[in-house]
Amino acid sequence: MEPSDKLHTAQFLLHQLQEVITLLEKQQLEKSLVERGPATKHALVEAVLHKQHQTRLQEKFAVLHPADIAYILESLPLDQRKTAWDAIKTNLEGQVLLEVSDAVRQTLISGMAAEELVSVAGNLDADELADLAADLPKRAMLKILRSLNSAERTHLNAILAYQDNQVGALMDFGMITIRDDMTLKAISSYIRKLGKLPSHTDKLFVVDQHNAVKGILPLQRLLTHSPSQHVADVMVTDFVAFQTDLDTAEASRAFERYDLISAPVVDQDGKLQGRLCVDSIVDFIREKSDEDLLIQAGVTEEEDLFSSVWKSAKNRWGWLLVNIVTAFASTRIIGLFEDVILQLVALASLMPIVAAMGGNTGNQTSMLIIRSLALGQITPANVRRLIKKELTLAALNGTFIGLIMGVLSMLLYRDPALSAVMSIAMLINMLVAVIVGLSIPLLRHKYGKDPAVGTSVILTSITDSMGFFIFLGLASLFLIAK
Amino acid sequence: MEPSDKLHTAQFLLHQLQEVITLLEKQQLEKSLVERGPATKHALVEAVLHKQHQTRLQEKFAVLHPADIAYILESLPLDQRKTAWDAIKTNLEGQVLLEVSDAVRQTLISGMAAEELVSVAGNLDADELADLAADLPKRAMLKILRSLNSAERTHLNAILAYQDNQVGALMDFGMITIRDDMTLKAISSYIRKLGKLPSHTDKLFVVDQHNAVKGILPLQRLLTHSPSQHVADVMVTDFVAFQTDLDTAEASRAFERYDLISAPVVDQDGKLQGRLCVDSIVDFIREKSDEDLLIQAGVTEEEDLFSSVWKSAKNRWGWLLVNIVTAFASTRIIGLFEDVILQLVALASLMPIVAAMGGNTGNQTSMLIIRSLALGQITPANVRRLIKKELTLAALNGTFIGLIMGVLSMLLYRDPALSAVMSIAMLINMLVAVIVGLSIPLLRHKYGKDPAVGTSVILTSITDSMGFFIFLGLASLFLIAK
Repeated sequence: MEPSDKLHTAQFLLHQLQEVITLLEKQQLEKSLVERGPATKHALVEAVLHKQHQTRLQEKFAVLHPADIAYILESLPLDQRKTAWDAIKTNLEGQVLLEVSDAVRQTLISGMAAEELVSVAGNLDADELADLAADLPKRAMLKILRSLNSAERTHLNAILAYQDNQVGALMDFGMITIRDDMTLKAISSYIRKLGKLPSHTDKLFVVDQHNAVKGILPLQRLLTHSPSQHVADVMVTDFVAFQTDLDTAEASRAFERYDLISAPVVDQDGKLQGRLCVDSIVDFIREKSDEDLLIQAGVTEEEDLFSSVWKSAKNRWGWLLVNIVTAFASTRIIGLFEDVILQLVALASLMPIVAAMGGNTGNQTSMLIIRSLALGQITPANVRRLIKKELTLAALNGTFIGLIMGVLSMLLYRDPALSAVMSIAMLINMLVAVIVGLSIPLLRHKYGKDPAVGTSVILTSITDSMGFFIFLGLASLFLIAK
Repeated sequence: MEPSDKLHTAQFLLHQLQEVITLLEKQQLEKSLVERGPATKHALVEAVLHKQHQTRLQEKFAVLHPADIAYILESLPLDQRKTAWDAIKTNLEGQVLLEVSDAVRQTLISGMAAEELVSVAGNLDADELADLAADLPKRAMLKILRSLNSAERTHLNAILAYQDNQVGALMDFGMITIRDDMTLKAISSYIRKLGKLPSHTDKLFVVDQHNAVKGILPLQRLLTHSPSQHVADVMVTDFVAFQTDLDTAEASRAFERYDLISAPVVDQDGKLQGRLCVDSIVDFIREKSDEDLLIQAGVTEEEDLFSSVWKSAKNRWGWLLVNIVTAFASTRIIGLFEDVILQLVALASLMPIVAAMGGNTGNQTSMLIIRSLALGQITPANVRRLIKKELTLAALNGTFIGLIMGVLSMLLYRDPALSAVMSIAMLINMLVAVIVGLSIPLLRHKYGKDPAVGTSVILTSITDSMGFFIFLGLASLFLIAK
């Protein structure tokens, strides 16, 4: 295969597959047309045809990487996805299930019998099984547990004991451990006997008799150092290891900083529990950032592109209902000032601007704070300076943008008092917005909660309400004849 | 060093450093108090004191990883950052500059003389220099170019020839190439002679006499196969390679899918140009996702937490000014209906809800589309189904939420006609929002533009204007006595 072609193969295949499947569907149609003829004969023909296509699909899938198959399945509508899934061999199914998104995995698993799932699970390692566990039906999971040997069951239970955001939940057991009194030669012949190293093995872990990690031996040192040397003389003792209960976000930052490929995972006594590899970290970073983006847009969780309308609706209603409540709250504030609006209807046109600009300013501030918190850059020592800077900035922006708005409303309504109220309301609401945009993420972080979740909703609801209140309130004080 | 401690060292040090720096600042203060005494003597004392602290800082920094120093610098306000930066040794400065964010890098470079930058550059590889090139003053860059040998200059020019979003711009030259007629034994002794492999070397690249990549030799095969075998018999020929002009986003998806650590970068004839490694990809994914998040919030680019107020203001005004324009446009639509509002002031309270819910629904749709486009899941074959599904969903959500709003406004205003208008306006605006939320990213993608940029602004501006127009328009048609 020509280099760089591989990358596009999956995309080409997706198109080809869609054609094959369209063909399959056409035959279904022809079938129902032909069905008027002798039914038994037709069923036979149809079965053969179907089988032919299944074979064609199977051949195509057999040469693909599980990740590419996953990509194809995710891009297929539900009915076509089912046809394609049936054509995938059992020995591949497990890997494919690992690669698809959570939402798509559920559509695939829901159509499988418990026995089928048990045989699929037979091809997976404990850490891979752990990734699937949450999506497997209880009955199937029990059967799978019974089918495991005791080492596998111990591994599986070890992983499942950790929370989703802990390093322990992401570890695997593909590590090679050695003792420091061995020679490099002995290790080389040990590896030669193994015949194959687990993927992402860039280092071996040196442990003592209690399984505590004493150092690491980078694989390349086996190649660059004399075979007669001992591990103790060659190993690296200043290395990064992760506690099982460490937050994965923190571990991912360590992978980024120190450009790690793999690292030992240890318990509180420094005893080796497993291994964390960069591929899991890449997946974690991608998932977390997708999640953050979707949360900003008010989508609760990852969605299967082709999930049923009802499922999607459920996923999006939560947020929309929250928004109804907050929108209604700000509406009631406008309701308080209806007589003011009746006396000066221009207020109705101008008030959404005050609310909207507050929301924008506050979101800018909160997003920068959320990001800096995620990078661990905000410390007790610098937080005061930061608050001071953001407030100064808000005062500056508020004055500047307030003046622009004042001039614009002057051009529209030729009412100097109205323009002054507009400018001042703008400035005050932008200050309020920045205070809120600073407070929510900082307070959520202080109390150990994810600062990204919900900040935007709460912020917008406050800046809307306050925007209306400040603007209409100032107007009723200064513009309306009592 | 105990495992897992390393991760926290930087944070501890940050606090310690801040104390040292506070001390330094206090001495500045004492200095000005003492200055009344004999000035020359004091200057001497002060210089000694300052030097002591510089030495203390230097010692601290010397044991840190450049990434940790970068983290500390990013968390320090500008004046303290300068003090700390002065205490970092020249041989570390280059690596630290590579690790800090773009915004912080500029604050560090701006205080350095051209000669200093040239000596810093002397410690960097061509691919690392390329990363800094955009931030270096022209005069320094010319001097640096002159100081390079011809191989380094060729490498640097090769990288700089590519656009930021192309694989060529991210490649390095730390690859080891071999021929397929060599024995594994010959390669092992070659590596032993080298003494050290470049970081992230998990495979060697097999090239022919024209430098075209024929295969890869995973490092572990050197350990698991017999030394007498030839590379041709052991190498992998089905491997992933990237064209220099490939979009980095596509390459990053390949790294995720195939769990790559390194891969060859080739030109159109398959000739080896460089190497792409997972550490660059991790940084790319992180930066891209941060950028996407900040863009959603209306921050143009990454911001130094402690940049001057003016710089930050400039970074945020662009978006705020765009928002003034769009907010004003929707205001003018309300202006058209001022007489309608005067006749039924409840409209002023209810109209922001119609606008806001449209914006929320549209953002949900557009964000899911943007994400699916980024994952390459949307194809000409499935886009119709997708549009149909989103529209059905909008109709369903619109009816449901429209009804809720109708009931709520009925409770508030006891006006069945007003409630009906509210429900219908809600439904129509949510349909409009979904159509816009689908169209903008799909069209931008079709014409080769980043679907994430600007979608949210344009969408909100349309859903606001349309929300006001539909609601007030329907009200003027059905609720107002002419």
